[in-house]
Amino acid sequence: MSEWRMDVVTGRWVVIAAERGGRPFDFKIEREGTRAGTCPLCPGHERETPPEITAYRAPGTAPDTPGWRVRVVPNKFPAVRGCGCAVASARGVHRAMPGIGAHEMVIESPKHVRGLEDLGPEEVAAVLLMWQERCLALRRLAWVEYIQVFKNVGRAAGASLEHTHSQIMALPFVPREVAAELAATGAPEGCRLCAVVRQELAEESRVVVAGRHVVVFAPFASRFPFELWVVPLVHEGDFARADRAVREEMALALHGALGRLARVLGRPPYNLILHTGPVNRAAADFHWHLEVLPRITVPAGFEFGTGYYVNPLPPEAAARYLVQNENPR
Amino acid sequence: MSEWRMDVVTGRWVVIAAERGGRPFDFKIEREGTRAGTCPLCPGHERETPPEITAYRAPGTAPDTPGWRVRVVPNKFPAVRGCGCAVASARGVHRAMPGIGAHEMVIESPKHVRGLEDLGPEEVAAVLLMWQERCLALRRLAWVEYIQVFKNVGRAAGASLEHTHSQIMALPFVPREVAAELAATGAPEGCRLCAVVRQELAEESRVVVAGRHVVVFAPFASRFPFELWVVPLVHEGDFARADRAVREEMALALHGALGRLARVLGRPPYNLILHTGPVNRAAADFHWHLEVLPRITVPAGFEFGTGYYVNPLPPEAAARYLVQNENPR
Repeated sequence: MSEWRMDVVTGRWVVIAAERGGRPFDFKIEREGTRAGTCPLCPGHERETPPEITAYRAPGTAPDTPGWRVRVVPNKFPAVRGCGCAVASARGVHRAMPGIGAHEMVIESPKHVRGLEDLGPEEVAAVLLMWQERCLALRRLAWVEYIQVFKNVGRAAGASLEHTHSQIMALPFVPREVAAELAATGAPEGCRLCAVVRQELAEESRVVVAGRHVVVFAPFASRFPFELWVVPLVHEGDFARADRAVREEMALALHGALGRLARVLGRPPYNLILHTGPVNRAAADFHWHLEVLPRITVPAGFEFGTGYYVNPLPPEAAARYLVQNENPR
Repeated sequence: MSEWRMDVVTGRWVVIAAERGGRPFDFKIEREGTRAGTCPLCPGHERETPPEITAYRAPGTAPDTPGWRVRVVPNKFPAVRGCGCAVASARGVHRAMPGIGAHEMVIESPKHVRGLEDLGPEEVAAVLLMWQERCLALRRLAWVEYIQVFKNVGRAAGASLEHTHSQIMALPFVPREVAAELAATGAPEGCRLCAVVRQELAEESRVVVAGRHVVVFAPFASRFPFELWVVPLVHEGDFARADRAVREEMALALHGALGRLARVLGRPPYNLILHTGPVNRAAADFHWHLEVLPRITVPAGFEFGTGYYVNPLPPEAAARYLVQNENPR
């Protein structure tokens, strides 16, 4: 059983997930490169994952058999698991609680490909729809305060499986990164992300894709070279409430932006992170968006010591390379 | 010229350091493995670094020639540079200021070795003394609010040079990670790190080295497998004020702990980070310490999205492996 532990000096929560690590020799960074045929996420290997929670599948096909387009299963090595009351207990000065939470894996396609850039826009839209459905299902659990959706692509971005997939974790509290954003994105007239979107669209120098409902830009204070934010124009805190028009344009924009990244940088490792509003907050209190973090630089002592970042590439230059589809090498 | 930029949604500062990145093809992660003989940090290659700021060197030897034991030079590719007034100006909704700061490199030994674990304890003590001297010198600059000392060892921990070295950055503000700790470590009777140290010494299960002046333990809420904190027992906020007895025992403890890590894990990449009090705060307001972050797991979407961590190894198990000098494989 995992355990949530709080660092009382910083207030930071950590989940000690001994099951996830398995035996100590697993600590060696895992090698990438399962092959189609031996991949546990490929069709025909459904018995190698825990039984499916839900799937989009062809009529008449049974759960845990081929015929699916998007498939959701419990994570085989969950970081958090089970329900309960999120009350920390004291162990002297320390604070801890059981490792409650949910940890699901979304297998995004039957194709053994690496990322969303390798799927069609309509397939990406189906993934976003599945994320929405899982957010709606998981928030019914009484202890859930936040749902973190993310995707790791490539070994240097933390992926241990090659086949395109994302992860969903339901958490018993609002994480500190989200809490920091909450203070700045509440109420349409005071939302700083609304203000940023207006300025990016006006200045254009950091914009990569500008659509009717969605904008993709390299943020002014990018932490990483080629960092991208994918933001709906309308002020809406709840990702699960995004309608079909927004979802489909978001899928197109995301597919386009990730495809440009892949061409310009040669398929870099990256993290894709959904920022949505906490479960028990009004939808107006947040502005949901996606962040793409290419992992071609390594956060090091400065970043861990300060919480700030050194980025060697101005976002204006990153946007220019991406817009022109130009390989900088 | 670099530029500090603030993300107005999160309050996070980033330095856009275009000089540091050089040309775009440098973005490929650099390969480790300069060899002694061609290494720009080795004796005989002093002209390949900027002119030295200070050094501990044999009597009668001239600056920028061999004969040094510890040598400090400006970073050849500084992230920040120059003096000035730390006032952010508005660019619409965005906030920015010139990339002021200092960025120095401490070449820790003339030997072409990888880390402090490869030096003798007295050589490590000389490095700590040099860090103290540079902290005292840099804090005389009027705009300096914080001095961040850190060390990256191995490519996966962000190092681009193999020869053992550390970095010192003088910053025009107090970083957010330090601000978070400040609130919890002030005044001896209220310092949570003092309380943690007392409990760790009493419980013993996470302690790796317990000395007269210093304790090394795997923190209760370790973010990384084999994370270690090296903490002086006395409540003191200012690293530069640590006396010879503390410094020499700290060097011995650090050397011992890093040596155990190297043996148990097979020379893992790691970051070593000094946490000291801000320049303009009373020394009682903080509790300085060192943090060792082995980089055998990869922070990924969950960590960047939430600011929290999944750690597959309980710190009690890590301490046991290190105390017993036992290779977990």
